[in-house]
Amino acid sequence: MAAAHRARSSSATRHFPERDMQLGMIGLGRMGADMVRRLTKGGQQCIAYDVQPAAVEKLKQDGVAGAASLEDLVAQLQKPRAVWLMVPAAVVDKTLENLVPLLEPGDIVIDGGNSYYHDDIRRSAELAQRGLHYVDVGTSGGVAGRERGYCLMIGGETEVVKRLEPIFSTLAPGAGAAPATPGRAAGSTADQGFLHCGPQGAGHFVKMVHNGIEYGMMAAYAEGLNILRHADAGKHAREADAETSPLRRPELYQYELNLAEVTEVWRRGSVIGSWLLDLIAGSLVSDADLQSYAGRVSDSGEGRWTVAAAIDEGVPTPVLSAALFARFSSRGDADFANRVLSAMRHDFGGHVEKAATPADGHKS
Amino acid sequence: MAAAHRARSSSATRHFPERDMQLGMIGLGRMGADMVRRLTKGGQQCIAYDVQPAAVEKLKQDGVAGAASLEDLVAQLQKPRAVWLMVPAAVVDKTLENLVPLLEPGDIVIDGGNSYYHDDIRRSAELAQRGLHYVDVGTSGGVAGRERGYCLMIGGETEVVKRLEPIFSTLAPGAGAAPATPGRAAGSTADQGFLHCGPQGAGHFVKMVHNGIEYGMMAAYAEGLNILRHADAGKHAREADAETSPLRRPELYQYELNLAEVTEVWRRGSVIGSWLLDLIAGSLVSDADLQSYAGRVSDSGEGRWTVAAAIDEGVPTPVLSAALFARFSSRGDADFANRVLSAMRHDFGGHVEKAATPADGHKS
Amino acid sequence: MAAAHRARSSSATRHFPERDMQLGMIGLGRMGADMVRRLTKGGQQCIAYDVQPAAVEKLKQDGVAGAASLEDLVAQLQKPRAVWLMVPAAVVDKTLENLVPLLEPGDIVIDGGNSYYHDDIRRSAELAQRGLHYVDVGTSGGVAGRERGYCLMIGGETEVVKRLEPIFSTLAPGAGAAPATPGRAAGSTADQGFLHCGPQGAGHFVKMVHNGIEYGMMAAYAEGLNILRHADAGKHAREADAETSPLRRPELYQYELNLAEVTEVWRRGSVIGSWLLDLIAGSLVSDADLQSYAGRVSDSGEGRWTVAAAIDEGVPTPVLSAALFARFSSRGDADFANRVLSAMRHDFGGHVEKAATPADGHKS
Amino acid sequence: MAAAHRARSSSATRHFPERDMQLGMIGLGRMGADMVRRLTKGGQQCIAYDVQPAAVEKLKQDGVAGAASLEDLVAQLQKPRAVWLMVPAAVVDKTLENLVPLLEPGDIVIDGGNSYYHDDIRRSAELAQRGLHYVDVGTSGGVAGRERGYCLMIGGETEVVKRLEPIFSTLAPGAGAAPATPGRAAGSTADQGFLHCGPQGAGHFVKMVHNGIEYGMMAAYAEGLNILRHADAGKHAREADAETSPLRRPELYQYELNLAEVTEVWRRGSVIGSWLLDLIAGSLVSDADLQSYAGRVSDSGEGRWTVAAAIDEGVPTPVLSAALFARFSSRGDADFANRVLSAMRHDFGGHVEKAATPADGHKS
Repeated sequence: MAAAHRARSSSATRHFPERDMQLGMIGLGRMGADMVRRLTKGGQQCIAYDVQPAAVEKLKQDGVAGAASLEDLVAQLQKPRAVWLMVPAAVVDKTLENLVPLLEPGDIVIDGGNSYYHDDIRRSAELAQRGLHYVDVGTSGGVAGRERGYCLMIGGETEVVKRLEPIFSTLAPGAGAAPATPGRAAGSTADQGFLHCGPQGAGHFVKMVHNGIEYGMMAAYAEGLNILRHADAGKHAREADAETSPLRRPELYQYELNLAEVTEVWRRGSVIGSWLLDLIAGSLVSDADLQSYAGRVSDSGEGRWTVAAAIDEGVPTPVLSAALFARFSSRGDADFANRVLSAMRHDFGGHVEKAATPADGHKS
Repeated sequence: MAAAHRARSSSATRHFPERDMQLGMIGLGRMGADMVRRLTKGGQQCIAYDVQPAAVEKLKQDGVAGAASLEDLVAQLQKPRAVWLMVPAAVVDKTLENLVPLLEPGDIVIDGGNSYYHDDIRRSAELAQRGLHYVDVGTSGGVAGRERGYCLMIGGETEVVKRLEPIFSTLAPGAGAAPATPGRAAGSTADQGFLHCGPQGAGHFVKMVHNGIEYGMMAAYAEGLNILRHADAGKHAREADAETSPLRRPELYQYELNLAEVTEVWRRGSVIGSWLLDLIAGSLVSDADLQSYAGRVSDSGEGRWTVAAAIDEGVPTPVLSAALFARFSSRGDADFANRVLSAMRHDFGGHVEKAATPADGHKS
Repeated sequence: MAAAHRARSSSATRHFPERDMQLGMIGLGRMGADMVRRLTKGGQQCIAYDVQPAAVEKLKQDGVAGAASLEDLVAQLQKPRAVWLMVPAAVVDKTLENLVPLLEPGDIVIDGGNSYYHDDIRRSAELAQRGLHYVDVGTSGGVAGRERGYCLMIGGETEVVKRLEPIFSTLAPGAGAAPATPGRAAGSTADQGFLHCGPQGAGHFVKMVHNGIEYGMMAAYAEGLNILRHADAGKHAREADAETSPLRRPELYQYELNLAEVTEVWRRGSVIGSWLLDLIAGSLVSDADLQSYAGRVSDSGEGRWTVAAAIDEGVPTPVLSAALFARFSSRGDADFANRVLSAMRHDFGGHVEKAATPADGHKS
Repeated sequence: MAAAHRARSSSATRHFPERDMQLGMIGLGRMGADMVRRLTKGGQQCIAYDVQPAAVEKLKQDGVAGAASLEDLVAQLQKPRAVWLMVPAAVVDKTLENLVPLLEPGDIVIDGGNSYYHDDIRRSAELAQRGLHYVDVGTSGGVAGRERGYCLMIGGETEVVKRLEPIFSTLAPGAGAAPATPGRAAGSTADQGFLHCGPQGAGHFVKMVHNGIEYGMMAAYAEGLNILRHADAGKHAREADAETSPLRRPELYQYELNLAEVTEVWRRGSVIGSWLLDLIAGSLVSDADLQSYAGRVSDSGEGRWTVAAAIDEGVPTPVLSAALFARFSSRGDADFANRVLSAMRHDFGGHVEKAATPADGHKS
């Protein structure tokens, strides 16, 4: 994937005016603070606010303008204002409750977090009644975004999104972040790494599916690596009892593979190269068995919403849903179902559950 | 499912002669011993053998003839002999190694256990070279079989299978075990509960797929009951952090369902009635939370072989394979894959794994 | 599964008073009309209404009282009234719009169709504001229910559900429909085939999951039978080109299995016996290849809602969702996804799509 | 992903001696011919042979030495010889049958195609009896490999693999093809794009799992894009009948997304960037609806073998298997299973199959 982030000042391919623009940022967590830094470095003017004054202070030390309160933030912004929310999805509505009364018709509210697009549709209608514009931005890039730039998937009114292009353009990685796609006509902002996907909610809809795909890709790598890790299964005597399926040809499973090396070699020339693979290869360098993790995998909503959308649309998603459910299971949420299975096996076949052995034990 | 087992003496619908027949039974575990008892009660003459003399003694006390050794067993049987193996799949080959030299051309060896049909094909060819006949019998019925009768899926040569019909007929549940299927012509042994499926291996092939289906059905019930069990999810405060997907409408998940009652009501008139459901309903009567199980679900081969056969044939089996893999996961075999997922989440998003909470805890 | 439906007049095990009760039935489709017939035969008094006068006429010829309009229906019913809706889920709200203004406080509205339980929660709150009671009844039994009885899963207020017991008791199969579950204490209505599951919505919630399980069971049988059907794969020359995975050991796939016989034999004594299996066995008698079906499998909502509920609860349902998605795919809804796969294969490997061959052709 | 292929002559980071080495190449299809060209350009000496003389002629015109027969090829090679087979997996054994008698102890046979690793283990044992060395090389890179270089996963004896390093090093992309992984110690060939994974079969084992992961990743993208494509589901009237699940909130599915733009924007800065995504973005530029494909997706073995290995090892692979089965279904192999479902629905519920509508029709 894209080598280094293209230096912004020397860009020859940028299509859009990058005139300075002013943006108020609410929420200075990891993502929000890094975005302010990238915007500032790119020549945009930010006024930063967070409910935690310390977070504001930290950015002020980096030369960014700070606000002491929402009122202060709004007061410092030129009209029509543009305010970007980078807060947990769960507190967006509460933040809007406090912010909206301070705004004036023509102002723009941008939700750059991980909101459910259902909420975008509702909120944009509510804000429209006050003459306010609402823009939803699905933001991908994670902790690497400050340097690499952020991939931005945007929903909202065309004119309003257009007005914000200097912001989007500065946050995005830029065209140099990937080789040009053969045959593509020039002129689309997608080449820069940001895209106006459609009306309100479209940005978070596309980001939601993006994350759904991410779940599937991650699971594909994880399952494959698990197979490689157990390629020495034939070396380990398996218990020979009626409750254990025998390994018929142990001579086929005698490989002790070095996963750090395997993932590294895949990074060059293979069909499955990706940024996620780059990350796995990095993790395995320092912790070959990934013993620093317990394997309880969280999900933060988008995977669920993706499958729910697929069901609404009648689109089959066996892979994305399997990836989602594997996460649920990793947290113990299949336990009762498993007990039901054991109870049935006991009752029809007299099968007794085997005692637990150290999970994945032969390698630990 | 079938009320009581039809009394064999009063059968009016039995199509096949039930002349007495002699059978040697090797392997007097739960299944083998019960089959001897059912055969004896049904008028067939059994000679019973097991590597554990105590198992033979126990049956002798019930009036069954016993053998002290394989040689003794073979010596007591009239020619051409019929010997039924009811031993773990893993020791069939070893048993044959000792048994086969004692037999004579025309004798029949029956494998009634859970052998892989690949082995049947190999073994039947090996035995044919010595003039011996090989019959494979997939046997379903479990611990209830002694009373209910056994469903028998049979592979082998037509004449040989025909010769064994008195045995099969006595082991099978009989036609009264289920209402007649509308429109079926009379005369098939399938109506009695045993079927000559095809040449050697066909019996275990059909039994293998039978068990594959069983995995799928069991998982369907288990997953459904797990959903019902968590229908009170809205009553439990979920942590509100970026690592936890919020329950958007807790008011929709306020049900505290009594699963023993729900499974009982489904037993009458519903579309999902089955013998497996009868068993679940029974389990939940005495142990509503199934706390006597840990949820480590074994698999004994047939589910794996079913999916492997589907892959060879190019037949999609998303449900049967999902059921199989859920069992693997229940035993911790996804652990490394899950750690890979957590490592990726950490590296691209800075996500830190949440500490384990008591699995399925709110009900325990 | 339960033999014949126990004659109601001779019931010795019925626990609940079966005093006559009056019920208005709206919707005389297949289900509604049959339920009226079963209620009438069981001694309950029904007044039947349908938007199609012909449907009312037909029942009147069977001696059932009919109504010419909703007003007429309401007028004929004694107070407090009980009105049962048996109409498509999509027209329940519209029916209520017309019906509710005609009712009086204390009256009961029962929705016996396939409503989403979300709607039950909403509707029951709306009706409560007018002093009306709402009861949701998940009804399983299909076209066989008139004779076998219906399995009823009920949500609503305890007193109201209690008041309707004569109706539920008459519709349900009765205790004789299945053998008693060992160890169960007597006295539960679940033994009769109806159950008060919880407050409003609980009935349809349980029925929803019931149908989700049904999807999984059906898919388990379907996948298994598909494997059996292709057990002769080794007899058919497979094209040997780079786009076709070779069958390595064709000698293992030489079985030509008779599925009508196999499903019949499974009906007696096997672990996978069920009412659904009884139906499959029946279908295969007259149409061994099921050529009267095209294989476009509809879904009518409950499977989708089940998976959506599982996702909300965080409960893994790999099997139930795989079953749902297989239905979507059967209707061509994976087509674009498949084209994406072919495009990728072309672009990285130069693979050209193979021409279509007659699907499942070797058997047709 | 890796920008341009690093010019080989100017390499400063290559660790391994690139002394000229001689290689016989058997099989001049797309892959074999391109590999010869890359090797030749990189300074290695190739002698090329194919059963099609025209293929040899074509390379000779490019200045590559050709052989007229296997005998000729063997005669031209210096001892100990190194012969690389790049032929379809199905003809490897036949080629070896002809080649092996011509070779002498100490010679090396390399299978660079897509052989099943089971065959590697068998073949290497057979060749060892004649004093021949066997090396298996899983080769990824596809049609782009000539320019990008090939990712090589290698199994065999350590000394033998070492001897071939000049060949591997020239075929591989080189270290510059991807940024260095932070924290990795220098010196591994994995950084160059080739890896000695383990003893014979290990190369194809790792390549097999690589392809299994590829299936999963491809399916993740395909499913996600299918969801995006149907984001306008609310604009299309859905039939309102009992066989069709209603779209409850059509206002949530009003988006008409441009997939060529969406995949392009994901290429910069997003978490799901990859080479496969680059290819999809390219495909959609010229054929937005992918109408040039029918969606019948082939599989060429590795996906099947991956899942079979997982089953042997007891490793859950719900995602990889779902991806595999989706391909089977795309070719109509679920048809009989679907007919079984429709038959059941008809028999329990009287449901009649809906007539086919143009698949994915609203967009075509």
